Amino acid sequence: MRSVRWIKEIRFDEKGLVPALIQDARSKELLMVAYMNEEAVRKTLSTGKTHFYSRSRKRMWLKGETSGHIQRVRKIFLDCDGDALLVQVSQAGGACHEGYRSCFFRRLNARAGRWRTAGRKVFDPKKVYGPSESR
Amino acid sequence: MRSVRWIKEIRFDEKGLVPALIQDARSKELLMVAYMNEEAVRKTLSTGKTHFYSRSRKRMWLKGETSGHIQRVRKIFLDCDGDALLVQVSQAGGACHEGYRSCFFRRLNARAGRWRTAGRKVFDPKKVYGPSESR
Repeated sequence: MRSVRWIKEIRFDEKGLVPALIQDARSKELLMVAYMNEEAVRKTLSTGKTHFYSRSRKRMWLKGETSGHIQRVRKIFLDCDGDALLVQVSQAGGACHEGYRSCFFRRLNARAGRWRTAGRKVFDPKKVYGPSESR
Repeated sequence: MRSVRWIKEIRFDEKGLVPALIQDARSKELLMVAYMNEEAVRKTLSTGKTHFYSRSRKRMWLKGETSGHIQRVRKIFLDCDGDALLVQVSQAGGACHEGYRSCFFRRLNARAGRWRTAGRKVFDPKKVYGPSESR
């Protein structure tokens, strides 16, 4: 890329992170939200595959590095305040480590006061990650 | 509501906040992201209109309290980690205080290294908020 001016317009928080909302480019389904540091934003753009910063593991990771369920970047948007990214992707397999297409697979049933599974399961996490791995 | 068990499953961060991704229930367009504290979550459910917690103003606010551009809640989802909400809404007017339907109105043109306006302007913010107000 010729210029990095665009990256200066992203307002990373005090931890150097920005939330990235990941949306299926075709169906517009919201797949997940994760955080990027500046390195992850650059790597996402240079490789065309989403990279995030794991706050628990304190390192950058390629989405799909274990599962193969990578996300190919189609379009990137920045919000009015500059403190959130929206990334439209083509998702291989499922976004959620629990085997669902989307991480937002629990829907509130307000009358019952419960979250109910409403998502589409697209793979078996035990087969993809092994019995003990979580992601 | 009969039970508040469901609210205990939301993992608010160390500031007592959870990001809420707001999506148009019909078109699936991502409209904005903002933060809710527990009070805002409860108020959103009891009134059927989105409420958020403003980190800068340090108070809860009703989306559309100035502009009239309220968001009627259709469905609420929780992600696998419990630390993000997805709220599908019917949006009156535009979600963005700059007059756009969505806050994500800037799209990255990677070749040019620039964010370019790609959104739909649906109202004149000066007419809605007055010349000096920002929201």
